[in-house]
Amino acid sequence: MSTTNLAVIPGDGIGPEVTAEALKVLEVASPVKFEQTRYDLGAERYLATGEVLPESVLAEIKEQDAILLGAVGGKPNDPNLPPGILERGLLLKLRFELAHYVNLRPSRLFPGATSPLSPAVLDKGEIDFVVVREGTEGLYVGNGGAMRVGTPHEVATETSVNTAYGVERVVRDAFARAQARPRKKLTLVHKTNVLVNAGSLWWRITQQVAEEFPDVAVDYLHIDAVMIFLATDPARFDVIVTDNIFGDIITDLAAAITGGIGLAASGNINSSREFPSMFEPVHGSAPDIAGQQKADPTAAILSGALLLEHLGHPEAAAAIDAAVLADLSERGSAPRTTSEVGDAIAKRV
Amino acid sequence: MSTTNLAVIPGDGIGPEVTAEALKVLEVASPVKFEQTRYDLGAERYLATGEVLPESVLAEIKEQDAILLGAVGGKPNDPNLPPGILERGLLLKLRFELAHYVNLRPSRLFPGATSPLSPAVLDKGEIDFVVVREGTEGLYVGNGGAMRVGTPHEVATETSVNTAYGVERVVRDAFARAQARPRKKLTLVHKTNVLVNAGSLWWRITQQVAEEFPDVAVDYLHIDAVMIFLATDPARFDVIVTDNIFGDIITDLAAAITGGIGLAASGNINSSREFPSMFEPVHGSAPDIAGQQKADPTAAILSGALLLEHLGHPEAAAAIDAAVLADLSERGSAPRTTSEVGDAIAKRV
Ligand SMILES: CC(C)[C@H](C(=O)O)[C@@H](O)C(=O)O
Ligand SMILES: CC(C)[C@H](C(=O)O)[C@@H](O)C(=O)O
Repeated sequence: MSTTNLAVIPGDGIGPEVTAEALKVLEVASPVKFEQTRYDLGAERYLATGEVLPESVLAEIKEQDAILLGAVGGKPNDPNLPPGILERGLLLKLRFELAHYVNLRPSRLFPGATSPLSPAVLDKGEIDFVVVREGTEGLYVGNGGAMRVGTPHEVATETSVNTAYGVERVVRDAFARAQARPRKKLTLVHKTNVLVNAGSLWWRITQQVAEEFPDVAVDYLHIDAVMIFLATDPARFDVIVTDNIFGDIITDLAAAITGGIGLAASGNINSSREFPSMFEPVHGSAPDIAGQQKADPTAAILSGALLLEHLGHPEAAAAIDAAVLADLSERGSAPRTTSEVGDAIAKRV
Repeated sequence: MSTTNLAVIPGDGIGPEVTAEALKVLEVASPVKFEQTRYDLGAERYLATGEVLPESVLAEIKEQDAILLGAVGGKPNDPNLPPGILERGLLLKLRFELAHYVNLRPSRLFPGATSPLSPAVLDKGEIDFVVVREGTEGLYVGNGGAMRVGTPHEVATETSVNTAYGVERVVRDAFARAQARPRKKLTLVHKTNVLVNAGSLWWRITQQVAEEFPDVAVDYLHIDAVMIFLATDPARFDVIVTDNIFGDIITDLAAAITGGIGLAASGNINSSREFPSMFEPVHGSAPDIAGQQKADPTAAILSGALLLEHLGHPEAAAAIDAAVLADLSERGSAPRTTSEVGDAIAKRV
């Protein structure tokens, strides 16, 4: 049995609880053994030591085969935790350092999950799409600044940087994913009528790469129009490809309409495999319910399935998916603890 | 009876039809007489003459008291209409030249309107909020560029520019609107954890201005969290203040959950009254149904109410609102023509 090196970052709040369940299920499902190394990163470590992501830790993580992350983040408005410090110093730092250019977010309305959309909208068809969000460029590059701070003449800027190299690799990945799906449909989302420079780059590259995938149908929507369709006809989407900030916005709405971020999994993927990819639930660390075994580990468990798929074990990934599906369809209203949910899913795998 | 000079830009597609109904209702409701000047601007004019917004026309419009716009835009993907030309050359140009720093978008679920949200979500409370979107800064300033265009080394940028001056005036306007509403609640929306420069400016200015409005309750949400709340608990919002692009995105979702952009009105307002403000339905020119009397003029009519309110005629505005409300609650499923809807509402005023 071969061994896969797995970095585990349980993180803060409910992170460790949901990660434990994801690992439980992974161990049952995986055809390979995971050699785990735990990294103690997040708000707690920062508050205790002032460290966010030491270079030595980053160097070690780079040598792993994959990363499983729970959730990081301290109490809301903690004055000792400057806004953005963990996001930019840890989460985004990992995405950038490990070239996670594909931020993958499957959006499915699972059986038994409660959508906030009306029956009339849900009757239009099954909601089952994937958002391929660019993860290493755009407004997330930290390319901004401020002058005359605190005066009436302050100017603050944020620059979205987009490169042909960066756009092409994520667009190509999205086309490949669309081609592998039954509907073979790709929707590019941008705001080409306002952001004419970046929009034109995304548009042209999409047209170019489309030639390599003649069986994939391509369309385009402005980000604002996507809002309307996600609310009124989400079944129309198959694969969405978009930039970093639009993807951030779309995927939270997608998670909401498919039953909430409690079920939303994500992968931060380096498709070209130069660096380990990272898998994490979309939800946060929810410090208010931490340590109480109240958190739903489903999103973390599904993130484990994405991890297996990325590592080349699609059958094992499908087995987790099926187990989650079965568990979800039989979930009653009786509350279960975090580990009861994990146990139930592990048993079904 | 005093006279108000009104610039009317009917525009393209269904624009002229819905504008006619808005004017019909305005004439009945308004305590002042409107001296109308029509400006022929939009896709048709551009395609016929190559002109988007001649300087002389802009100069004339600047002298008017207010502007009523229908909708502009040609057929989708018309090769003769470069993407962004009307948006940046006409719509945004007017917003910028006329310092429309308050892009106002009321979002109400009207009786009889069909929301795509489930009864469980709608039961949480009445949806009635206002988005105050900044209209003259942010990613909309056209401050971007590209190099090595068309090569594998292309770099395309878009810079969001935010100033203390620009943020403060719109935030102050939003506080005043919140203070005038029964719930007196303001939600700042941004992405402070990633866009730390612009986010910090918006955050600090909101805190500062809040001191002048001690009776207004302030909270903050990241743009991605707003997506979730708009889908699952929109009743929680009262006044939202946000930047240009986030406002663009939020308002289309807000329109969708309150029954569609067929009902969404908007004002591009210069609250300090140096320049005329512009009122327009949120929907586009819908060339596919143009000239067939199929368009719903309700959003244009409600934009007329916003215009009257801005010009200092709140009773007349309220009369239009009430007439629309009454019409909406009695709308059956039988289709009416555009002018039948206008007639019905005008009669009720
Ligand atoms: C925490 C934050 C930096 C992050 C993002 O904006 O990407 C989160 O919202 C996400 O979607 O993963
Ligand atoms: C047409 C476009 C430029 C415009 C915008 O992005 O502001 C529109 O979407 C709107 O919301 O008024």
